[in-house]
Amino acid sequence: MKELVLAPSVSSHIDFASYEGKEIVLTGQIQNLRVLAWGGFIILRLPNYLVQCVVDKAKVAFPLENLAAECTVRLTGTVAPAQIKDKAIWPRGHEIQVSGIVELSRPSVSPLPVDTTKKELNCELHTKFDLRPLTLRHPRERAIFRIAGTIYNEFGESLARAGFTRICSPKIVFSGAEGGANIFKIGYFDRTAFLAQSPQFYKQMMVGVFGRVYEEAPVFRAEEHDTSRHLNEYISLDLEMRLENGFEDIMQVETAVLRDVFARLERDCAPELELLGVTVPKLDKIVTIKFSEAHEIMLKETGKDFRGEKDLDPEEERTVCEYARKTWDTDFVFVTHYPSAKRPFYALDDPENPGETLSFDLLFRGIEITTGGARMYRYEDYVKKMESREMKVELFESYLQAFKYGMPPHGGLGLGLERLTAQVCGLANVKEASLFPRDIKRLEP
Amino acid sequence: MKELVLAPSVSSHIDFASYEGKEIVLTGQIQNLRVLAWGGFIILRLPNYLVQCVVDKAKVAFPLENLAAECTVRLTGTVAPAQIKDKAIWPRGHEIQVSGIVELSRPSVSPLPVDTTKKELNCELHTKFDLRPLTLRHPRERAIFRIAGTIYNEFGESLARAGFTRICSPKIVFSGAEGGANIFKIGYFDRTAFLAQSPQFYKQMMVGVFGRVYEEAPVFRAEEHDTSRHLNEYISLDLEMRLENGFEDIMQVETAVLRDVFARLERDCAPELELLGVTVPKLDKIVTIKFSEAHEIMLKETGKDFRGEKDLDPEEERTVCEYARKTWDTDFVFVTHYPSAKRPFYALDDPENPGETLSFDLLFRGIEITTGGARMYRYEDYVKKMESREMKVELFESYLQAFKYGMPPHGGLGLGLERLTAQVCGLANVKEASLFPRDIKRLEP
Repeated sequence: MKELVLAPSVSSHIDFASYEGKEIVLTGQIQNLRVLAWGGFIILRLPNYLVQCVVDKAKVAFPLENLAAECTVRLTGTVAPAQIKDKAIWPRGHEIQVSGIVELSRPSVSPLPVDTTKKELNCELHTKFDLRPLTLRHPRERAIFRIAGTIYNEFGESLARAGFTRICSPKIVFSGAEGGANIFKIGYFDRTAFLAQSPQFYKQMMVGVFGRVYEEAPVFRAEEHDTSRHLNEYISLDLEMRLENGFEDIMQVETAVLRDVFARLERDCAPELELLGVTVPKLDKIVTIKFSEAHEIMLKETGKDFRGEKDLDPEEERTVCEYARKTWDTDFVFVTHYPSAKRPFYALDDPENPGETLSFDLLFRGIEITTGGARMYRYEDYVKKMESREMKVELFESYLQAFKYGMPPHGGLGLGLERLTAQVCGLANVKEASLFPRDIKRLEP
Repeated sequence: MKELVLAPSVSSHIDFASYEGKEIVLTGQIQNLRVLAWGGFIILRLPNYLVQCVVDKAKVAFPLENLAAECTVRLTGTVAPAQIKDKAIWPRGHEIQVSGIVELSRPSVSPLPVDTTKKELNCELHTKFDLRPLTLRHPRERAIFRIAGTIYNEFGESLARAGFTRICSPKIVFSGAEGGANIFKIGYFDRTAFLAQSPQFYKQMMVGVFGRVYEEAPVFRAEEHDTSRHLNEYISLDLEMRLENGFEDIMQVETAVLRDVFARLERDCAPELELLGVTVPKLDKIVTIKFSEAHEIMLKETGKDFRGEKDLDPEEERTVCEYARKTWDTDFVFVTHYPSAKRPFYALDDPENPGETLSFDLLFRGIEITTGGARMYRYEDYVKKMESREMKVELFESYLQAFKYGMPPHGGLGLGLERLTAQVCGLANVKEASLFPRDIKRLEP
């Protein structure tokens, strides 16, 4: 038996100012190397920093020309005020005056097939994805996923503080949640199973147990669309809750959670936000418009009349967002009361207007990032609605037992992590907010 | 346009003592109802409480006999010191003296097909799973998943504080990580794809980008075993990190994270732990033994000689844990230096003893909950090892590009959320720690 001593934990946040004049040890990969007559510069890649390290040949025996970009090195050095303030470097204002170098590993092939030292990664989207393990080494690419990870974390923590229980529902399921053809089939031993399109049924069943639940997990859609808005696998941030007052409860919870998320991004992701040149959106009021108002805004703004349509066109989503921006000074608009015809069977109709549902989408900077609403909660209502849609009630028995034996009035929402991340980071294509995007043509890496 | 006002957030932790003598409003489902001549008792199910509510017929007009278990009600009442201190109720010591009742929903069928008011849920395992949306309404069943959710959350938060970046790797993949037959096939448009058995390849590639990464996500194993230790879909808590000193770094990080997890369970899950009659384990030292020592302990303790075996038998895992308990006063043992033959191709061999790997399993109360270790990080080593195992190197090209262009020395681990939860909660079968377990026979609900 051997007993290990617990090492002190490493923080991702090094306050270089407090180390000024002191010696520190940093391990990382070399982002960029410049060998000059007097010595040279190493730009060292740390988890969320790019640190400028100055090597004076007169003081360091290690031959700098033996290193290369993407070598892993352990540097010893003294923190000093920076001589050159490079915009690409973080923290700005400090550099390391190197006194020792140890090489820990080196690439077999050098340089990288893409240039990760330029401000922008200049390559086609398909190259970016083909070479993902390498292109993500570019600081801007990497920053996107520091932000995505932080959104994921704070969505969960904010809900946990508000009394929500995290659930993990199965992804291998016996039938689709939403019905339809957009579902992947799996061989499950001697049977056929499916990949879950959403945790909808499970999170509803769990409201009967915990009152308030959430899940952050992949969902799978076999959609053949290959657009800048779609992914065949994405992370769905889901919540479902007992309603106290009405479906407005859900929009209030989402607003509170998004505020927590944005506050944490400001706190934890300052270098990444600056690198991407974006600021976190403000969400200081909860603006809601009815679905029918969205069509009116479209007509007024563009002259296009979509008033007969049962859903919003992408162009309408953009127009409504622009209108909301200039009229109400907000990046976020909740569009409520979608027509029943375009909502899933479990949506709750408005008792005052049965053709409309007590539902909403959240639009953010021109795109829908959330769909939510109140659900039916009476067993008899489910049976009636399912029969009216010619669904086979008996296939949904294990779901419906929750309703048969009593469920509270409830509702919830699904928020696409990649869409939210893309909008926060100002990305043109949602695939850029997916580490390893999956579309009809792409399964690798 | 309508503007909503942000409601104050609801906390799951109500400090009833501070409300003594005050009026509060509670919404929940009726766990149990007892109608008596003078009025009766409602046991109200809140997210993590079971609150005793006393109804005096003389003061409340609502006819109690019109209610039933599993009705959702909104109760108004005054917090008072409890008359009867029922062990099943939490918080003990306080009750609600009801002044008003509003019924919000009621079951179509009553009572539940299982009795959720008894201390234990008396039914067979298959019934428990068949009726999951209902059997989880039993306080003990529900407590397991409050604990699982809290473990999930703190694993992530603890690592985020230590500079790890959360990643979300794809679950639809083009080839298996570990090889072998235990993999589910998916129809992916006109191709065949697979369900990820682990995020192994992706988390390794991301160490080259972020230095330290983690993921909490489902993994899928098409194992035909139907045992108390196996699930075909489970949540794997994964981390992967650059190594500073050696593979001991990984065990130190795991120890620090587990300590954080247990501290948070004590803070946030006191009612659940008490309900299950368990205490959180102590992890005050990091005990490691070599794989060969485990065989020696087995021989010494039981007379059984497994010294020729390349893996530990479940019986050995139990014996080693019992031995560690009595000898070193610990519930946790890291077993290190597993034979190379039984470890995956990416495991790093011990340079001082090439038949052994710089790897470990973590045993906890008789069962392996973690497998981890250092990985190879040189491209040439991968090619050599894969060829020696007759693997087709060209199939792994997109994975190997990370190594070709430079990777740091690194390692990591996978921790099964359900196994850890089961061991903390003292459950005999890991399936009881899965909300909706999947095994060779079970796909529903």
